[in-house]
Amino acid sequence: MKKLPTLHGKTVVNLFFEASTRTRTTFELAAKRLSADVLTLNIAASSAVKGESLLDTLQNIEAMQCDMFVVRHQQSGAAEFIARHVKPHIAVLNAGDGRHAHPTQAMLDVFTIRRHKPDFPNLQIAIVGDILHSRVARSLIHALNILGAADIRVIAPRTLLPAQVETLGVRVFHDIKQGLREVDVVVMLRLQRERMEGALLPSEQEFFQRYGLTGERLALAKPDAMVMHPGPINRGVEIDSRVADGPQSVILEQVTNGIAVRMAIMSITLGHHAHPVGEEV
Amino acid sequence: MKKLPTLHGKTVVNLFFEASTRTRTTFELAAKRLSADVLTLNIAASSAVKGESLLDTLQNIEAMQCDMFVVRHQQSGAAEFIARHVKPHIAVLNAGDGRHAHPTQAMLDVFTIRRHKPDFPNLQIAIVGDILHSRVARSLIHALNILGAADIRVIAPRTLLPAQVETLGVRVFHDIKQGLREVDVVVMLRLQRERMEGALLPSEQEFFQRYGLTGERLALAKPDAMVMHPGPINRGVEIDSRVADGPQSVILEQVTNGIAVRMAIMSITLGHHAHPVGEEV
Amino acid sequence: MKKLPTLHGKTVVNLFFEASTRTRTTFELAAKRLSADVLTLNIAASSAVKGESLLDTLQNIEAMQCDMFVVRHQQSGAAEFIARHVKPHIAVLNAGDGRHAHPTQAMLDVFTIRRHKPDFPNLQIAIVGDILHSRVARSLIHALNILGAADIRVIAPRTLLPAQVETLGVRVFHDIKQGLREVDVVVMLRLQRERMEGALLPSEQEFFQRYGLTGERLALAKPDAMVMHPGPINRGVEIDSRVADGPQSVILEQVTNGIAVRMAIMSITLGHHAHPVGEEV
Repeated sequence: MKKLPTLHGKTVVNLFFEASTRTRTTFELAAKRLSADVLTLNIAASSAVKGESLLDTLQNIEAMQCDMFVVRHQQSGAAEFIARHVKPHIAVLNAGDGRHAHPTQAMLDVFTIRRHKPDFPNLQIAIVGDILHSRVARSLIHALNILGAADIRVIAPRTLLPAQVETLGVRVFHDIKQGLREVDVVVMLRLQRERMEGALLPSEQEFFQRYGLTGERLALAKPDAMVMHPGPINRGVEIDSRVADGPQSVILEQVTNGIAVRMAIMSITLGHHAHPVGEEV
Repeated sequence: MKKLPTLHGKTVVNLFFEASTRTRTTFELAAKRLSADVLTLNIAASSAVKGESLLDTLQNIEAMQCDMFVVRHQQSGAAEFIARHVKPHIAVLNAGDGRHAHPTQAMLDVFTIRRHKPDFPNLQIAIVGDILHSRVARSLIHALNILGAADIRVIAPRTLLPAQVETLGVRVFHDIKQGLREVDVVVMLRLQRERMEGALLPSEQEFFQRYGLTGERLALAKPDAMVMHPGPINRGVEIDSRVADGPQSVILEQVTNGIAVRMAIMSITLGHHAHPVGEEV
Repeated sequence: MKKLPTLHGKTVVNLFFEASTRTRTTFELAAKRLSADVLTLNIAASSAVKGESLLDTLQNIEAMQCDMFVVRHQQSGAAEFIARHVKPHIAVLNAGDGRHAHPTQAMLDVFTIRRHKPDFPNLQIAIVGDILHSRVARSLIHALNILGAADIRVIAPRTLLPAQVETLGVRVFHDIKQGLREVDVVVMLRLQRERMEGALLPSEQEFFQRYGLTGERLALAKPDAMVMHPGPINRGVEIDSRVADGPQSVILEQVTNGIAVRMAIMSITLGHHAHPVGEEV
């Protein structure tokens, strides 16, 4: 991979209020490959309890002449809150906020789909698993709607679906065999094990039995259906290992594309800020 | 902010024996913007209990061909101890040692004052709060004396003043209304909440009532008086939010200047080492 | 130290499953001085309990287009396991695996010996202390055998020697006075204090009394005998401070050489991968 000078002299700050080695790492690599300086701040949730102290933290980092904040936070709306309160020249990227959104994940997902199956209006896409708690699902559905995908399906038990999920522009299936029929793309979601305690699910075994992606079930989809997963995967819980590692899986391609897409987003966002509007770049 | 090649190929080691995200971050940014490689070592106080093992740690890092140590330590004299024991080509910066000194903070403070009010001999400067435990206050008083400031005031209760503080070249006030009268600069100190337990202070509320900087009290100073604070601020404890965020506050400007001043100190210090004495640079 | 552009655009990942500030730091510095981007991942042993999840972690980092893994792991064979499972273009360096091997340490050790005493076939080398648990000893013995050293001695109590240690090509001494006689090089090993609990050793004091390197004992070796130690040293346990800091000690020189040797290993390894075989470089 070639290192680019695009963000040389820029400072990208990873503001992670929620632990995430994987997402943090991809943003850090993306920034470094654009020659930016990267600062990573893991901010314990406790110190951010008061809105006031969060704003003071932000203003201080802002005063250190940083150019971009990459924000991961367990509360929905955190990145937008931050974007509204920092100076306009600072770019804010949402790296996941509560159950709300994970836009860079959605962009790498649609980028990956597009490289294999670019005709979105004619695609059948199924998203399977814990839709209720998934910011990945919400952002992906949003992106697919923008791209004109007409047949978006969610496959999940009632307990793992948001109320009135149909209003998002999706069709609901509770039976995975029906839902996967003839789809082009299967997006499996990670099952957060801590959901088990909340009595939303009987057990991992039963979840796999009802909603796990096996080779047999995948055979119901189109022969060239792509298998996707935002990672990290729970083998034997939401996906069978043979499917995860099989020829239809693009799970690792998603990871590779994640760096490229984040580099692109960073370049465009900071490039926009670096040049006056109307100037040719 | 432009990135400079000044310290390209140099290695700056942050040796932090005491946690400090803020100060560490500013030194890290300063070094990176000078193109240095930065290594951050958070050394638990426990492993530094024996002087011998501290020296072994130092000698090892020294043997790794590092060029600068930035030292933060809870014991007074630590940076000087280290400077005396490392090889002469290694630059040692004190980033705060016990109650003793915090020279880069003092330098950014006087730099900030100078940009607004450069005539030090004719300035009235008041430092307010916990002088006793404050390395910031000690270093600032020292710097102001060097610059010829004739009227330096400390405003604090008896329990938060060092014995014989007058010998530092300051005038003592216990009443903030008297102390602030006609001053050009008000420097508020952070109140360490852990001091409360030591029975040095009755309560945060009472401290604010007697020594907190309110708009009403600030009105006693000159109309263009600057409000400073080394941060992080305790809103409602030593300073009212409206004053901290008000037009006379230069608190965030101090943060911005902190990077520039530390870049300057690093450049001068390592530049001095990089060129033989007498050579024109 | 000059910074080289050799690995500009390459990403080196420190995969540390076992804590080691010192070794990690030397690899990090070596990579940065070759202009590589460095990513450090401290992976808790717990998350690596399942081989499957370790492989998933590896495949993900691999998919992020990294070029080199530096692996430290508490299990023997971990680095080789990883090397067998990553794609062939990724270079894997073993930075210490269980009791098995620590090859870069051995290479810096023989590099250091060679600068002072290059005639390996005619050298007498004694390795003293806890051979049983030492990957440093195993790798060093291996390297010395390759270089043709004919007289390699291990000096240790029976409880700290592996079974059939003679098959490694060494002579065994239980009496340090006999073992050190006329040697050119003395390599002291670090005594892991946690071994005491295992009843392998009576006490630190008794260990020092029987096997500690004192000036008196060193006098039995050749007058120009070199004193080495992989660090960190336990003063007064395996080595007397006067010897560690004395004129025959090259302990800090080992640290300095450690950076250079690791830079060389990284350059050669990634250089090999970067150019097709047969192409002139």
